[in-house]
Parts: sequence; C-alpha cells; structure tokens
Amino acid sequence: MSRRKYAIGIDFGTESGRAVLVEVATGKEVATAVYKYQNGVIDEYLPGTQIRLEPDWALQDPEDYIRTFKRTVPAVLKSSGVDPADVIGVGIDFTACTMMPVKSDGTPLCTLPELRRNPHAWVKLWKHHAAQPEADKINATARQMGEGWLARYGGKISSEWFFSKTLQILDEAPEIYAAADRLIEAADWVVWQLCGEEKRNSCTAGNTAIWSKREGFPGDAYLAALDPRLEHVIDEKMSRTIYPIGDRAGSLTSQAAKWTGLRPGTAVAIANVDAHVSVPAATVTEPGRMVMIMGTSTCHMVLGQEEHLVPGICGYVEDGIIPGFFGYEAGQSCVGDHFAWFVEHAVPPEYHKAARAAKLDLHQLLEQEAAQLKPGESGLLALDWWNGNRSTLVDVDLTGLLLGATLATKAPEIYRALIEATAYGTRVIIDAFEQNSVPVNELVACGGLPEKNKLLMQIYADVTGREFKVTASKQTPALGSAMFGAVAAGRKAGGYDSIVEAAQKMARLKKETFKPIPENRQVYERLYQEYVTLYDYFGRGANDVMKRLKRVKSDALSQG
Amino acid sequence: MSRRKYAIGIDFGTESGRAVLVEVATGKEVATAVYKYQNGVIDEYLPGTQIRLEPDWALQDPEDYIRTFKRTVPAVLKSSGVDPADVIGVGIDFTACTMMPVKSDGTPLCTLPELRRNPHAWVKLWKHHAAQPEADKINATARQMGEGWLARYGGKISSEWFFSKTLQILDEAPEIYAAADRLIEAADWVVWQLCGEEKRNSCTAGNTAIWSKREGFPGDAYLAALDPRLEHVIDEKMSRTIYPIGDRAGSLTSQAAKWTGLRPGTAVAIANVDAHVSVPAATVTEPGRMVMIMGTSTCHMVLGQEEHLVPGICGYVEDGIIPGFFGYEAGQSCVGDHFAWFVEHAVPPEYHKAARAAKLDLHQLLEQEAAQLKPGESGLLALDWWNGNRSTLVDVDLTGLLLGATLATKAPEIYRALIEATAYGTRVIIDAFEQNSVPVNELVACGGLPEKNKLLMQIYADVTGREFKVTASKQTPALGSAMFGAVAAGRKAGGYDSIVEAAQKMARLKKETFKPIPENRQVYERLYQEYVTLYDYFGRGANDVMKRLKRVKSDALSQG
Repeated sequence: MSRRKYAIGIDFGTESGRAVLVEVATGKEVATAVYKYQNGVIDEYLPGTQIRLEPDWALQDPEDYIRTFKRTVPAVLKSSGVDPADVIGVGIDFTACTMMPVKSDGTPLCTLPELRRNPHAWVKLWKHHAAQPEADKINATARQMGEGWLARYGGKISSEWFFSKTLQILDEAPEIYAAADRLIEAADWVVWQLCGEEKRNSCTAGNTAIWSKREGFPGDAYLAALDPRLEHVIDEKMSRTIYPIGDRAGSLTSQAAKWTGLRPGTAVAIANVDAHVSVPAATVTEPGRMVMIMGTSTCHMVLGQEEHLVPGICGYVEDGIIPGFFGYEAGQSCVGDHFAWFVEHAVPPEYHKAARAAKLDLHQLLEQEAAQLKPGESGLLALDWWNGNRSTLVDVDLTGLLLGATLATKAPEIYRALIEATAYGTRVIIDAFEQNSVPVNELVACGGLPEKNKLLMQIYADVTGREFKVTASKQTPALGSAMFGAVAAGRKAGGYDSIVEAAQKMARLKKETFKPIPENRQVYERLYQEYVTLYDYFGRGANDVMKRLKRVKSDALSQG
Repeated sequence: MSRRKYAIGIDFGTESGRAVLVEVATGKEVATAVYKYQNGVIDEYLPGTQIRLEPDWALQDPEDYIRTFKRTVPAVLKSSGVDPADVIGVGIDFTACTMMPVKSDGTPLCTLPELRRNPHAWVKLWKHHAAQPEADKINATARQMGEGWLARYGGKISSEWFFSKTLQILDEAPEIYAAADRLIEAADWVVWQLCGEEKRNSCTAGNTAIWSKREGFPGDAYLAALDPRLEHVIDEKMSRTIYPIGDRAGSLTSQAAKWTGLRPGTAVAIANVDAHVSVPAATVTEPGRMVMIMGTSTCHMVLGQEEHLVPGICGYVEDGIIPGFFGYEAGQSCVGDHFAWFVEHAVPPEYHKAARAAKLDLHQLLEQEAAQLKPGESGLLALDWWNGNRSTLVDVDLTGLLLGATLATKAPEIYRALIEATAYGTRVIIDAFEQNSVPVNELVACGGLPEKNKLLMQIYADVTGREFKVTASKQTPALGSAMFGAVAAGRKAGGYDSIVEAAQKMARLKKETFKPIPENRQVYERLYQEYVTLYDYFGRGANDVMKRLKRVKSDALSQG
C-alpha cells in the first residue's frame, strides 16, 4: 500500500495568512496554522515612518506574504508529523485585486531603500479605495469609445480593480510607474516566489484586469486614450500570456523549499482568488448550484454553460472558476456587517445583560429570541442597503430603510427583519440570474455566518424556496487551494487530473441541510413582493430620495 | 386698597387630580397640590374584586374625583394661607370623553352595591378602547343615512367618544343602560357635585357627543337607526341645554364647601377640557396662533373666524375653545412616546453609561449629542407613524419608517431624525390648515416636552418656519381652569367678564422664544419635500405596504 499523499493550501487574507495541510484522498484537514501579518492592513502610516496615508488608502507589506510561507508551512508539517516527501502540491488563493509594482526579478519596489518611503511602492490591497477618479476616467473613456467589454462588468469598472490602481500610480507617482518593470497581482507574485516563474492566472486577469479568454485585454488604442503613457502597459509591464486556473505554475525552488520545509520540485498551482477557490471546495463544479461566501458581505458565485449578460451582476469570466464554464459573480455589500451594526448601535442594555447572564454572545441571544417569531409576525420590512447595493442596482449611494415600526417593536424583531432583508436581497440576485438563463436550483454556503446562525440559514431557504447546504470545512478557501495543489501535482504523483475530480474526493458538505418550509415560504412570498416593490421604487429612479439625502448630508458637512 | 383675589383651577388627569391657587390680578401661581387617584386607571380588576376587565378597557372611580376636591383644595388654601373669602371662583378641566352612568340625583351607578360589580357601572375613561364595534356601527349608519355632521369630525367618530361608549353600555349591559337616569361627561358630573346643578358644557358636547351650536345633536331618526332603544336618549338621559364655556355653572353648595374649605356660594365655572382650557392659558384668544400641547402625543389647537372643513383634521367646534371662534383641533399620536420608545428599545449601553457618568437622563444626553449635528447631516429621514397617523391621514394602520441608514449611523442621529419627523408631521398639519383658510402664523407650546428639550423647539421653528413660544406655566390646564373660575366670578366679584380679558392678565409666555434660523430653514425645506413625498406615497394609497404588513402580522398571530 502506497503512503498517504497530502497537499497544502495557503489562503492569503486581509489580516492574516493561513495554511492547511489536507489529505489528498479524502480531503481530511490534518493541520492548520495562521500567521497574523506583522504590518496588517496599512492604512494610517507607512511602516516604521511618520508618513501618513490619505483616507481610503489600504496597503500591505509583501514581506508579510513571505513570512506567511515561513511560519505556517513548517508549522503544519510539524504539528501533523507528515513527511515533506508526501506533500505533492501547493496551491494559493488571495484577495483580489491586490496588486503591486516590482522589478523584473520580482523584487517589490517597497523593499528598495530609495523607494520605500513612497506609498505607491507598496502593495495596494483590494480595499484600497483611493482610485475612484481613475475608475471614473476608465469608465467614461470606455463609454465614449464604445468598448464592448464594459458590459461584461455590469457596465462599470470598480475603483478596486487593476487598471484603476495602475492609473493612480501613474497619475500620482509617475516615478514609481517608471521604476516598475512589472505590475502584478499579489496572487501571481507569491506563486512566482514559490516557483521562480512569473505566471499570471486567468481568474484575476478576468475579474479585475479586463481580460477575457476570447478577446484578451483592452486594445492599446483604448489604453492610449486613457493615458498615452499607458499605451503599451500590457506588453511592457504585464503579460498577454495568461494561464488557466487548474494548471501547474511550476515547481518549488530551493529557496522556497528552505522557507517552507517542503521538498524542491513540489508542484505549485497557478494562483487563484479566495472566493473562487471556495466553489469547488463547496463541492460545486457544475451549473445550477450557487455558492455563497457569507461573512461581512456575501459573494455569490454560480457556473453557467453559456455566456449571458445579466444586468447589474458584478461580472463573469470564462473558465474563471471552473475550467469549461462561465463563472458568474454577484455580491451583497452588507450582510454580517448589517447585523454587526445593529448589535453595536441599536440594542438596549437589557439584551446585553441577558446575553451575559446566559453566557451567549449578543448575536446568539438575538437569534434565539428572533427564532421565536413567526415569519411576518414582526410587521417589519427592511431594505438591506446600509452599505449600498452591489448587485442588480450597483449603487453605493443607496441607503438602509426600515419600515413597519410601532411603539411595540423590539430589538429581536428588527434583528430578524435585517436577516430577512439580506435574504430578499439574495433572492433578487437569484431572480436576476434565472431571468437571464443562468439557473440556480440550490444554495451552498460557506463562510463564518452560516456556521453560527441557523435561523439565518432557514430564513434564506424559506425566502429563496431553495435547499440551503453548508460546507463541512470551516476554512473553505484554504481547502480549495489545497485541492488545486493536488491538481497541479496530477494523478501520476498521487493527485488528480482535474478540479472536478478533486472536488468529488476532497470536498464535503455537512449532513444537516436547510429545506424550505411550505407555510413559511407562503408568507415570505408575500413579503418578498413588498420588498421588490420598495426595491424598485427606491432603487430604480421612481424616488431618488436616498441619493438626495446623501447630497443634503454632504452639503451640510461641506459648509464646515 | 382692596384685598387680593384668587381663583382655583382643578385639572382632572388620567392618574391624578391637581389644584392650583392663582392670583387673579397677575396669574401668579401661589400654591399647588396633587392627589394621586387611589384607584388610578382601572384596567385589570374592578377595585376590591376578582372581576377581570377585558383588554382595551379603562375605567376610573368617581370617588377619586371627590377625594381630589377634599385633598387638594384644602391643601392649597393651607399652604398659601389665603383666606377662603378671597377665593372668588373655581374652574375645572377634565380628560374627554370620560363618561359615566348616574342616577337622577347624580349618584354614580358604581357606588350602588347592587351594580358595583358590573364594569359598565363605572366611569369609562377617555382611553377605554373597547367600543370599536360600536364606533364602526355609528360611522357606517351615518354614512348610509348621509349624516352631514360626519364631515365635522374628519369623516369618522372615534371609539373613544360619547355615543360609542353609550352604545357599548346598551349592547353589553342593557340593565345598566336602563338603570342610568343620566349619561354624563365626568367633567360635567364634578361641576354638578360642586354646585348642585347638572349643567353640560359646550366643549365636550361639541367635541365628543356630536353636538353643534347650530345643529344640535344628531336627529332621533339617526339614533333610532343605530338602535331603537337609543331613539330618545338625548331627551331621556342627556340634555339639549348646553352651556357655553366661560359661563358660570352655579355656586358652591354647603356640602362642597365642606369638602374644599371654600365658602358656600363661591362661583363655579362650566366644565371644560384639559387641552382646550390650555389655549387661553397659553395667551391665545385670537386666530393665527396655534397652541400645541406636547407630551406623549401632541394636540394642536387653533382658532378660526369662519367655518372651514379641513380634510383629515380631528374636528372643530364653534365656541369650543374661545367663545366667538371656531376651535379647530388636530393631533399627532406619537411624539414623546416616539422618543421614549427609541430610548427604551434602541439605544446601546455606551450612551446609558455616558448619561450616568454625566448625571443626565438619556434623553438629555441624546439631545446634547444630536444638537451637535447640523440639519441634514445625519442623512436620515423618518415618518413619525410609530403609533399611526391621527391627523390629515387619520389612519391607525400606518407604521413607522426610517430611511437613510448606513453602517456609520449612530443613536443620536436617529434620535434627531425622530424629532425632525414629528416636526415635519406638525408642518403637514399647519399646511393643511392654511390650505383650507385657517391661518397659522405662530406656535405656542405647552406640556412637558418643550420644557425639557430646546433642540426640539428649535427644530420645530426651523421646520415650520414659524416663531415658537412656550408658556410660562408648567401647569397650563390648571391655570386655564383658574382663569375660567375668575371669569365665572365676574368683574364685580374681582374677576373678569371674559376669558379674553382673563388671558391678558393671567396668562404669560416665557421670554425665551425660538425663531427659525434661515440656513436651517433652507435645509429643512428640502428635507420636508422629501418627507411629504414619502408621506403621500405610503399614506395615500400609492403603496399600502404598511397595511399589508399589518395583515400579514395578524395572519401570523392568528395561526396560533
């Protein structure tokens, strides 16, 4: 009998990196280690300096990524006792778009003494939101020139994305732009550090750098119109050679072997994105089953056989999630954040006291109390726009609404209404997919929220009328990356030849699922119709009061 | 120099009665005494029994009224040292409609041993809400028969009013109806106890018993259609002789003199209603100045020279407030209650803690913080319908709405938005009056709220664009009753010949007034337009979501 084989997935998050060592045959998660980034999210001062960042800036330190390799991989090897010879592959996933300027040998500009004090030399984290003027220019120019690719992104390129951040560097620090031999996703950069080869992945290219398998990047004419200095940016500082996810990027270098304790030559997968790598880890490798990554916000992903334009949906990328399918993606910007806001800002002391007495956290107590209510019993209805609307309306200027309050309204009723509102928001997204020929028959959740809140799961099942399942793993992205590591190694080395095969063996769901309860569905059907009426009224121009209030607010603030 | 003269005003409230001894020449309040009713609001068990009341019932004990005379009047005489010979008149005001069945000599049925255990024998307090079926029948019958008086009451007779309560007695306790020689407002009954004569006042007759100076009561044919046994109720158990407020009802009997320590023969004024008696006590005896009694709810009163139908306004009565004028009345059902709800149900512990540390109550703390905000800065807008809408829409099934919330929204911002919402609600009422030729140029507030909350006063001035003044007295109704007592005594006895004259001498406003601030007005003008759009959208049938949610709620509850 041959020895058991293992793969390691490394998930680079916002505040920390995590490695999971997984048994290839079964998907069993044998060991986990987390490294909290030394410099975390850099949003006040550049590390070790008094150089203050502007508001909306968010940077990271690439040395934290290397430290993640050095700390977590040896730790999982040690705690599991697994022989490095039995680790056949490594995969990584990253936040996106998280991008950085580097020299041609991969040296990050921020590690060079002469550039270290320039904020633009550092990694721009996904939530760096200071490139809005650049995004506006990108969109306006694309509309002027009738660029067809704009429709693939719901008609709008975000300030978070690759060219917005690139253009900001060019606008504000042309010397950094000039010094950068390469502009690269951090995802691809860490893979480069592991295997010594710059190989760019199709997932981030498609999702954040306006690339598609069929059409490639935007044309040089468009880029030149944006800024003459950008005309050749793709050939000069990026690459037109894009590798599909699921491919092998290369083999671990001796240096990376030293960092990690793994053997030189271990297979390294093409980089991937945290949300996307979670899809096969949630057992989904076919159309019809929507994966929802639920945390502070929710990311919805579903596969389609064909290409469809779904209005107001964030985007879709061919082969972007699972090779052979179009990967569609949508999002709700305020889910866990919604409940956290409520718990922090609107729950009176009696509930805090009761939670302490019952040794529950306040969310648990409110969930318990809210679970006593029947659907519709609160008389409340909310629009879940506390943080704008990301999908179908794509409008950050929409705001939250609560309707139906009486003098008898209590905190658990509002808590439940907010959960219900996020469920209606998901239902709107599902309806948009289905109306545009992207079927959604079942939901699979991963992320922190579903773990913790069964009431929420049941409400989502009842509101959407669909069975709602939960991944067995609590660290789905890292598991997904390990699966891609096993695919990079390939069947001959003891891994798999495709991610579909890997998912069949390594991904699992919990046995407990949430099925719609017919009586609840009926009530929620009535309430959902009310939600949709308000959604359209406030979201589609009939009454733009929310935007006008924002304008009144900014006028009030600007009068000093 | 003649000796100083005094008058006593007695204000019968919901939980207690209050006497104030006032100097006639100046309105100086010399002494006050309060009697907390022994049996308070009777809404669970009949006193001294295990007889349980139905929900929505609210009774009082008439012996508490007599005890109020016996306790409070001697107390103010004693503490002031005023010679009873110098007290020239007594006036009373009461809640309304608070009504009771009595024998022909005035004996309350509930004091008779054989009837004492029947709830219908007791006083039905204004907030007894169990006569809704009867009110529905009154309204349906009136509509069927095309009764013209319905329009005077905004198209709807309330379950609180005289005939609703009368019909409930007849429906549920015909033996009590039969045993009642008289059905009478408690206001008139206490005056009867003071001066030995049953004299009914025009204010309650007009406001709650569908009487008008020009048309009298509804016809016998209408009453017969309601119930054949009611055909002659007015002649049999009520009276067609109605005395205008400002008249003298009679003179103190020797028995009442014994109760009170006053001299027999002291002038007693025709009874009045708490809200209405406050108007001259707020210096208002002419059109154009709206008096707002602000507490848990707000009652708005304004005088008009002519008769106008103002759609959705509670009602108007000729001579109902000040003789010679039409007294118009409107209301907001949720004002102090609104803020109390918020403070109880939606303010997190940190503010409770901060209030304790600063030795403020939570309202004061929130007011302080909310006062730091500029108009419009919160980005929030609310509809103040937590307890339905009493005026212009007259719809108890409307519910509260809050719009504009973000993840940065904090409690003081919501608190301010709720204050603003009640100010917009008042502005809607003012606009309704003015659009129907009842001018409102200035506001005068009395009641507990304006005392306590300067931010609220300034917001009301800014939102309405009108100067907002506050009464100097903290016990306006009792002062107003004392003024009517001085008028009942008349000029020859050292009093006044008219309430207008009494108001000029005895009523005062605070020097501090609240004037609209032009910059704030501009912002609130924009916000008010938004409020009105939502008010119409949710309140006038474009989207009846609030009512449908109430239906869903009652369906949910009825499924047990």
